Amino acid sequence: MEKIEISTREKQDFYDITPQIQALVRERGISQGVCYVFCPHTTAGLTLNENWDPDVRHDLGVALDAISPGRAAYRHGEGNSPAHVKSSLIGASQFVLIEKGKLALGRWQGIYLAEFDGPRRRQVWVQILEG
Amino acid sequence: MEKIEISTREKQDFYDITPQIQALVRERGISQGVCYVFCPHTTAGLTLNENWDPDVRHDLGVALDAISPGRAAYRHGEGNSPAHVKSSLIGASQFVLIEKGKLALGRWQGIYLAEFDGPRRRQVWVQILEG
Amino acid sequence: MEKIEISTREKQDFYDITPQIQALVRERGISQGVCYVFCPHTTAGLTLNENWDPDVRHDLGVALDAISPGRAAYRHGEGNSPAHVKSSLIGASQFVLIEKGKLALGRWQGIYLAEFDGPRRRQVWVQILEG
Repeated sequence: MEKIEISTREKQDFYDITPQIQALVRERGISQGVCYVFCPHTTAGLTLNENWDPDVRHDLGVALDAISPGRAAYRHGEGNSPAHVKSSLIGASQFVLIEKGKLALGRWQGIYLAEFDGPRRRQVWVQILEG
Repeated sequence: MEKIEISTREKQDFYDITPQIQALVRERGISQGVCYVFCPHTTAGLTLNENWDPDVRHDLGVALDAISPGRAAYRHGEGNSPAHVKSSLIGASQFVLIEKGKLALGRWQGIYLAEFDGPRRRQVWVQILEG
Repeated sequence: MEKIEISTREKQDFYDITPQIQALVRERGISQGVCYVFCPHTTAGLTLNENWDPDVRHDLGVALDAISPGRAAYRHGEGNSPAHVKSSLIGASQFVLIEKGKLALGRWQGIYLAEFDGPRRRQVWVQILEG
């Protein structure tokens, strides 16, 4: 298992970690398999989305704030319940297939660490299975 | 890695791709393992849900339109930000366990390609690991 | 493939199944790999979230009820469309990496069966691949 470290800079933002994961796949030197990407935090997540126009990430942030606002009925004392909810909606993990030694992503796809309660020091764990 | 091609017919719809994936698992001829299903698009996704009453898919579409409507603050010029948001909420991938040479699905579960910005020509990528 | 059985007690609730899955990983006796957890139901799901303060699960339930309420346009006759929607939003599966013979979870992460249309008898299926 490999670990990637990211220092997030905003309360909420999306960080393209595709190059770091691509590098780990290349180093491993296998032709075919599956790459597992896992976020060990409960107020962050991982998502695949467009890697071209940064406005897509902006709009995803706008949407998630509207879908998971603060709510009067919340009890969790830390005040970050909206971030916990976003983490469960987006998910804490992604897998990507490996083909010819590289991540098999769609033309417009990138792998993003989604920060929902930053800024913080975050980790992403990566495991690769051949097959 | 195998590729399935689907021509979607509506702006938003759910297409049962379980039979095509079941066929790939059978062809592979392994008894036990994991089947990975991956959608290489950022305005579509993959979900597991009821394969019996088509009203469930209708209602899922109604819900997603309500959860991810157009929003005044959106910037992405193509106007399909609601589709990008739905893709991150539903997710771009699914795995299903393989048992006795077949997909191990619940009695009412099917695997659906979720189109959020059609009609388009879409692909679904499938990989199978034995184990 | 191993099966865990859970009798849920409420209409909606989150059940920590980490100890049962950790036990299956230990029994299997491998050092490194991936643990796949799969929910074969379409009105329940699986999510990773905080295992410390139960208020986080309370707030997640409040949020999901607000995000997926009953809607006038719903057609599905059983009246549990909100539960089907929650299942697709949260997802029916999770994988967790295995490191040194144990589930590699973040400090605050637990694996939860999310019941959205209980009480019912539910299953969770677990498969482990070495690698």
